[in-house]
Amino acid sequence: MDFLSYFLMDFVSQLQSPTLGFLIGGMVIAALGSELQIPDAIYKFIVFMLLIKVGLSGGIAIRNANLAEMLLPALFAVVTGILIVFIGRYTLAKLPKVRVVDAIATAGLFGAVSGSTMAAALTVLEEQGIEYEAWAAALYPFMDIPALVTAIVVASIYLSKKRNAAEKYLSKEEYYGKQEYYGDQDYYGDQRITAGGYPREEGGTAGKRVRIWPIVKESLQGSALSALLLGLVLGLLTRPESVYESFYDPLFRGLLSILMLIMGMEAWSRLGELRKVAQWYAVYAVVGPLVHGFIAFALGMIAHYATGFSFGGVVILAVIACSSSDISGPPTLRAGIPSANPSAYIGASTAIGTPVAIGLGIPLYIGLAQALMGS
Amino acid sequence: MDFLSYFLMDFVSQLQSPTLGFLIGGMVIAALGSELQIPDAIYKFIVFMLLIKVGLSGGIAIRNANLAEMLLPALFAVVTGILIVFIGRYTLAKLPKVRVVDAIATAGLFGAVSGSTMAAALTVLEEQGIEYEAWAAALYPFMDIPALVTAIVVASIYLSKKRNAAEKYLSKEEYYGKQEYYGDQDYYGDQRITAGGYPREEGGTAGKRVRIWPIVKESLQGSALSALLLGLVLGLLTRPESVYESFYDPLFRGLLSILMLIMGMEAWSRLGELRKVAQWYAVYAVVGPLVHGFIAFALGMIAHYATGFSFGGVVILAVIACSSSDISGPPTLRAGIPSANPSAYIGASTAIGTPVAIGLGIPLYIGLAQALMGS
Amino acid sequence: MDFLSYFLMDFVSQLQSPTLGFLIGGMVIAALGSELQIPDAIYKFIVFMLLIKVGLSGGIAIRNANLAEMLLPALFAVVTGILIVFIGRYTLAKLPKVRVVDAIATAGLFGAVSGSTMAAALTVLEEQGIEYEAWAAALYPFMDIPALVTAIVVASIYLSKKRNAAEKYLSKEEYYGKQEYYGDQDYYGDQRITAGGYPREEGGTAGKRVRIWPIVKESLQGSALSALLLGLVLGLLTRPESVYESFYDPLFRGLLSILMLIMGMEAWSRLGELRKVAQWYAVYAVVGPLVHGFIAFALGMIAHYATGFSFGGVVILAVIACSSSDISGPPTLRAGIPSANPSAYIGASTAIGTPVAIGLGIPLYIGLAQALMGS
Repeated sequence: MDFLSYFLMDFVSQLQSPTLGFLIGGMVIAALGSELQIPDAIYKFIVFMLLIKVGLSGGIAIRNANLAEMLLPALFAVVTGILIVFIGRYTLAKLPKVRVVDAIATAGLFGAVSGSTMAAALTVLEEQGIEYEAWAAALYPFMDIPALVTAIVVASIYLSKKRNAAEKYLSKEEYYGKQEYYGDQDYYGDQRITAGGYPREEGGTAGKRVRIWPIVKESLQGSALSALLLGLVLGLLTRPESVYESFYDPLFRGLLSILMLIMGMEAWSRLGELRKVAQWYAVYAVVGPLVHGFIAFALGMIAHYATGFSFGGVVILAVIACSSSDISGPPTLRAGIPSANPSAYIGASTAIGTPVAIGLGIPLYIGLAQALMGS
Repeated sequence: MDFLSYFLMDFVSQLQSPTLGFLIGGMVIAALGSELQIPDAIYKFIVFMLLIKVGLSGGIAIRNANLAEMLLPALFAVVTGILIVFIGRYTLAKLPKVRVVDAIATAGLFGAVSGSTMAAALTVLEEQGIEYEAWAAALYPFMDIPALVTAIVVASIYLSKKRNAAEKYLSKEEYYGKQEYYGDQDYYGDQRITAGGYPREEGGTAGKRVRIWPIVKESLQGSALSALLLGLVLGLLTRPESVYESFYDPLFRGLLSILMLIMGMEAWSRLGELRKVAQWYAVYAVVGPLVHGFIAFALGMIAHYATGFSFGGVVILAVIACSSSDISGPPTLRAGIPSANPSAYIGASTAIGTPVAIGLGIPLYIGLAQALMGS
Repeated sequence: MDFLSYFLMDFVSQLQSPTLGFLIGGMVIAALGSELQIPDAIYKFIVFMLLIKVGLSGGIAIRNANLAEMLLPALFAVVTGILIVFIGRYTLAKLPKVRVVDAIATAGLFGAVSGSTMAAALTVLEEQGIEYEAWAAALYPFMDIPALVTAIVVASIYLSKKRNAAEKYLSKEEYYGKQEYYGDQDYYGDQRITAGGYPREEGGTAGKRVRIWPIVKESLQGSALSALLLGLVLGLLTRPESVYESFYDPLFRGLLSILMLIMGMEAWSRLGELRKVAQWYAVYAVVGPLVHGFIAFALGMIAHYATGFSFGGVVILAVIACSSSDISGPPTLRAGIPSANPSAYIGASTAIGTPVAIGLGIPLYIGLAQALMGS
């Protein structure tokens, strides 16, 4: 009963949060035919601001962490973040009529981390008197950033494989147009339409393999990952705290609310795509987080026996794996996988994934840790 | 004597306020031929930020107010806000050579509310020991937003009536060009030039009437009212306080100063339009606020006898009717009635209307309330 | 030894400062082929925000200063600021292969003032118990703004003299294109290429002289100096403190970090230009500040004997002359002299000039003042 009431309370408060409020607001005004528009230059700048902030906070957290001691848990965090994307790629993306790019973006969001879910877990751990390493919260960026980077790269590779050799020389606009185009084909499941482009691809399988590194490089050079990694490196190597605390951090939530509005307006026009497959996203958003958390819990236990990683730390690792990003993820994926439908990944994460992580995940992993501590 | 010195002191301090300072600064650099320009994308974003902030603060205020108790005064606030626009439409707009859209925009600004004038009234009420309801300040948005919406809709209807049937199919650019065009005709009072467009209109009077609802809908869907009403609904139904207090509210005055600069630059090029009619705006800006205040005072007294609305509350209702908006109004009207001349409405409100409200209005209504309380 | 260790510590901390960190970050991502771009509208808005803030802070400082008492030192500050630009124009700009516009921009930056270097000097003066006038810090804008204005005007005159009569009628784009073009000619030292444009110019020497005032006027009307001077006048004549403290000042460092990123990306593509002449910039950045400081020290001593200007004040005047701007200067010069290479002037100032001013300049002038006080 407690689980359910936690879950429902969090579900309702998520609906009233500025994040989801502005998203729904954007959908409503789009539905009512409003002419409101946020200029494209502003949209691009907001995405830049959000991504460099996510990178900076990650870089600062890692720089201030005890790297030697946290080596194994950090490695497991990276592994979990990447693994979650591949799990989504080979489960959700294989379900009938689910668009592959939407599934990859959703998996990226579930691999990324929610700071507020982690903060909730830290509070409960302290209330229950379970000890954890001071640097455990700094595991956050080790899972968050690899998951988002992996999702963008996997999506690029997927989309690139769909393009035939000739399309390699298309302009940027045509390229993104193609992404959308293949995305829709994918959605309609009509494999015959894409067949026309395949023979040449299949004739050059060897060529396809060597093309993976250029795609990874291109993803990293794209404006989304450039900004994210630039922030990460600046956070690690310079002392940007003054400008981070006076500028990037305070503006973050406000700019995010505007981005949510923009994404809501766009989501409205693409909501139809979701109707036939919404139940798969709901299933994934309930089952996925709990499975991800158990994987991280198991890896954490290995670190527990190998290097004495605390039970509290194991719970934190499990909770960040269980959580899905409402904050850093959406802008990154919007910029990095422009053809994915935001209503798919944000809806699944914010409306279901986060309540599941807070209402079910946190008590579950803490109960499990307490059972193991007692034994 | 006290009235006059209050009035003059406030007049001088208004001239030094950032709001008017940046407006005059913009006029000066335009006069000196500066090449300074604020990019259009930034201008649009600033307007969006200002309008959604005005809406959010109204929505939050209404959500936190005691709606049952304030029902009648709130209704009277709405009525007063709408009435002020129609008073301006049938007085100021009918004066010789006054452009109708300028007059409607000015009336909208005088119907809208100045937060700082209201704050001044609250301070004086407390000094004098006159009691008022805690929710009385929340009457603000009930007058402010209806006045601005009414002004924009009335202006749209006016401009639409001027267009003939053929113009209905013009592009947006041509539409706004036309607005300016008719505006000037209006200004020059040359009715013969517009005659060419009239016959078809007059032949379709029935058609004209049924066209009013589409115009209202179009006004509400325009980017200005969309942003305002979106903010209002988000403030009412969600919990945007965190993002409002950390983002929209702190940025408000700064972004307003930039908007004032832009409006000053534009106002310079249109100052000539005002020379022949400035005296009418001056008369309206002195007489209007006092009349509006008396109407609201009378309505407030009805609420006093009907539901026990306090004398302090009656004074507040009169003062917000007497005040004209220097803050929320200009960006809304600039975006909602683009063909109106900002130097007309801002000049009248900021330079004359606000000093009149603070220097004459507040002492007048408090004196009146004290006389009635004594009786 | 102490000088050297001060110098090196400051050099290292400068490299980690957000200012230089974002500049280098921009160069690195440009080198790695990133597609990250800051929209042009955002760039223009950031420059506007930075310049109006610099102007406002100068205007507010001057308004709050004791103008009668500080008349002579303020005059000397203006003279020093202008003189530094002309020293650079006739030393650095005459060195082999140094581009003239780069040299003028660099001299402008060394004439401008670093607030943090001045703050360091004030701290040391207080530690050493050396008294100074409370208004001495307000000498800042009297040197800063004239130096930047002079540099922009001198660069405009130089570039204008290079253009032949026909080019006077070119469009803005062509004009800036030409600036780049002549700049490069200058750099390559190939005087014959420009010869084609000269005869007509030389035939109209009288015409050239009368053209100087239009160029000064055009510089002042340009968007960079317009914003700077508008801020100055608003700071002097109105009361913008509320909006300055809540908006322009807090956003300053953050917006500057983004500008530095943009300038770093641009600097990378122009780094080649610097390779052959970098040693001249290094020499100038070490010798220049110390010479500028001595000139100001000498002028300050004249004020000391003439009007009793304190020894502490003399040190402050010398230190602000010795300092070079890392903050207000770059955006002003970037907008005012678009053809100058940012890697030349920012590199020279931030990486060498500032450590020299703090590590060598401050102890030097304080020691000199103490020696003179003892005598």
